[in-house]
Amino acid sequence: MRMYDIIIKKRGGGALSEEELRWMITRYTEGDIPDYQMSAFLMAVYFQGMTDEETAILTDAMARSGESLDLSGIPGVKVDKHSTGGVGDKTTLIVTPIVAACGCTVAKMSGRGLGHTGGTVDKLESIPGMCASLSRDKFLDVVRRTGIAVTGQSPDLAPADKKLYALRDVTATVDSIPLIAASIMSKKLVAGSDCIVLDVKTGSGTFMKTVEDSVCLAEKMVAIGVHNGKKIAALITNMDIPLGYQIGNALEVEEAVRTLRGQGPDDLTEVSLALAAQLLFLAEKGDMDDCRKLARDTLDSGAALEKLVAMVEAQGGDGTCVRHPEKLGRAPFAMEVKAETGGYITKMDSAGIGIAAMLLGAGRETKESEIDPLAGIILSKKTGDSVKKGETVATLLTSDETRLDAAKERFLESVAIGQAAPEKKPLIYARVTERGVE
Amino acid sequence: MRMYDIIIKKRGGGALSEEELRWMITRYTEGDIPDYQMSAFLMAVYFQGMTDEETAILTDAMARSGESLDLSGIPGVKVDKHSTGGVGDKTTLIVTPIVAACGCTVAKMSGRGLGHTGGTVDKLESIPGMCASLSRDKFLDVVRRTGIAVTGQSPDLAPADKKLYALRDVTATVDSIPLIAASIMSKKLVAGSDCIVLDVKTGSGTFMKTVEDSVCLAEKMVAIGVHNGKKIAALITNMDIPLGYQIGNALEVEEAVRTLRGQGPDDLTEVSLALAAQLLFLAEKGDMDDCRKLARDTLDSGAALEKLVAMVEAQGGDGTCVRHPEKLGRAPFAMEVKAETGGYITKMDSAGIGIAAMLLGAGRETKESEIDPLAGIILSKKTGDSVKKGETVATLLTSDETRLDAAKERFLESVAIGQAAPEKKPLIYARVTERGVE
Repeated sequence: MRMYDIIIKKRGGGALSEEELRWMITRYTEGDIPDYQMSAFLMAVYFQGMTDEETAILTDAMARSGESLDLSGIPGVKVDKHSTGGVGDKTTLIVTPIVAACGCTVAKMSGRGLGHTGGTVDKLESIPGMCASLSRDKFLDVVRRTGIAVTGQSPDLAPADKKLYALRDVTATVDSIPLIAASIMSKKLVAGSDCIVLDVKTGSGTFMKTVEDSVCLAEKMVAIGVHNGKKIAALITNMDIPLGYQIGNALEVEEAVRTLRGQGPDDLTEVSLALAAQLLFLAEKGDMDDCRKLARDTLDSGAALEKLVAMVEAQGGDGTCVRHPEKLGRAPFAMEVKAETGGYITKMDSAGIGIAAMLLGAGRETKESEIDPLAGIILSKKTGDSVKKGETVATLLTSDETRLDAAKERFLESVAIGQAAPEKKPLIYARVTERGVE
Repeated sequence: MRMYDIIIKKRGGGALSEEELRWMITRYTEGDIPDYQMSAFLMAVYFQGMTDEETAILTDAMARSGESLDLSGIPGVKVDKHSTGGVGDKTTLIVTPIVAACGCTVAKMSGRGLGHTGGTVDKLESIPGMCASLSRDKFLDVVRRTGIAVTGQSPDLAPADKKLYALRDVTATVDSIPLIAASIMSKKLVAGSDCIVLDVKTGSGTFMKTVEDSVCLAEKMVAIGVHNGKKIAALITNMDIPLGYQIGNALEVEEAVRTLRGQGPDDLTEVSLALAAQLLFLAEKGDMDDCRKLARDTLDSGAALEKLVAMVEAQGGDGTCVRHPEKLGRAPFAMEVKAETGGYITKMDSAGIGIAAMLLGAGRETKESEIDPLAGIILSKKTGDSVKKGETVATLLTSDETRLDAAKERFLESVAIGQAAPEKKPLIYARVTERGVE
């Protein structure tokens, strides 16, 4: 078998065989196929795509390229949740405690933030003492004891994905739907859960700019999951504006806790409950209506918040900071951003706001950047709200005063005020399951 | 400037600026752009193409990536001829002496054969004493003294093309029309001639399988030449069957000499005279009719043959072997291939016959293979000829008897005999000039 022939076949729009795909991933991971051939192949995939079957096999080959997490010794239904990445997206901190409180087992590996998107691991680590870089044994021990644990991604899982992603990142081959789907799903397969809910973000600052593309990505991922024996569904959710009102690590923990107390913003609460209900449904906790009610009740009863406290304490964190998130502290420097004119907020571009938060210290410009856990943005208004000239639109927070001006400039570029109220967009566009799009 | 952005732009179908193209070629030649980015770019070009202007600038940047041949000190109109590669194509040995005998200056750099196609350098080196690896000084000295010299390609010319071609060869990005055009034309620009005639072969065993693709490639190359101040034209010629009746190095010299005596096969004579006339026209030796007559007369007078003798002698070769090519010798082992059935020859696939000749020792399987100068094939019949069962179709010649059986098998696979005479195809399909396709 020759990589050259595989490139030619894909270039001509052909579908690769299982043997070809597995050979390619094995040899590439071992370093026998050079990057320059793989990048030509990836660009051919960008143009020619892959069938659902090809994508499913590719994903499985990537998942098997290294070690995998064996959850078979842990009792109960293991569930996982993945978001394609957004701004202000703290749903993991809400969804996973809800479903864990309902008896599902959550052994979740999560990412760190990069660029304008945050990462759950960074958010959790804004809690004093909290460790989200657990050893495998410690991780499984926490899962066993509390039914829920969240840790950073282990570097020895899916090494093929790691190597491929690094190559795609520098060869302009990231935004190919089958490649995105395979990358995400290889990490989900390796993480060993039985049920998976995907939150496919659509709009500004996401991989997928349109609902159609998002549905297409979701369909690919669901097909991969089904092909590999998973119970899986995806929600397509709106990321044209940030989710909730708070962006930044400690700020998001605080807002998540408020939501777990039933006092969160409507958008964040609605998306979180929908994801939790979907996951409970996959875990066969009842029909869809039962599961919606179960999720809501678990939130309202405070059981989900207690589950989050239990997890944080099991991972070495200070549980009182979860019960009383004001103890996380407040950044020393604040700047209010005021409306330069009156009218309606017509745009609040999430990518731009994510970058503004990053500039304040809440995110990483490069992998090596240090996070300021208290930095971030509190929005006072969101798209569709009316605003008077001089009224506060947002508050920028940072531990480094010199960062304020650049962040303010970036924030203002991301917000538009007009005279007519904008059309309201749905929060959840669609649900994609094995049966199709609803 | 970042290579990443250049890949994205091309991937999206955008046209690169002059600055981007020159920057990319300079940095790639210097080793600052890694192969894995360049191969992704090349695959994007495969799918998205390049405008004529982009291709012309790319070509010029490649031509300027190393040294170039300065012919400005040599008097007269400097002319060049290029074939995209065929089987039995010995036209260079006929066309260049004709135009040199008409007062044009020929300073031609030529390739060696690889795979099923032969190379002029190998053919010339079948003449005892002949040296076709001249130093630059020696090369220019022969040009000055005899008005014509042919040498192998200098490795320090167009290093960007060399590096890019090696990468395209292993990443399945060879057969992209703008990339083929840029590769060929960068070597033509660097060779410094004023007038260029291109022989774009079409059909079996060529880059371009259809006349439409060949015209497209010719148009690209002519546009590049014009953009860079050259007088240039292309003929699209038939390569479905070998040109002439003899394939192999000494065998092709012999047939070329016979043609220069006015006793060559019709197809070879016609194509050679058409290329020579086109080149004389570009060199302003008269109108097209004058130039056709001039080419014919120069052949008939024996002046062209004398020019070839002069060149061979100036390059250290034995001129009597040109005047009497039977002195080149005959391979010790011969095998006649006979028709297994009667009828008409309906196919004589040139790629397959080229490979059969290679298997006999006339060509190189890899760059390191040694050439057997006497090996090759003499056809007795060609496509369209009627043949009786048992009649000789061809004679295979080699210095290594063990090679005969495999070559015969390959030859037979390339020939088809049917009951109906095949439709006759034109020898010259079209002419492409600055003014368009004729």
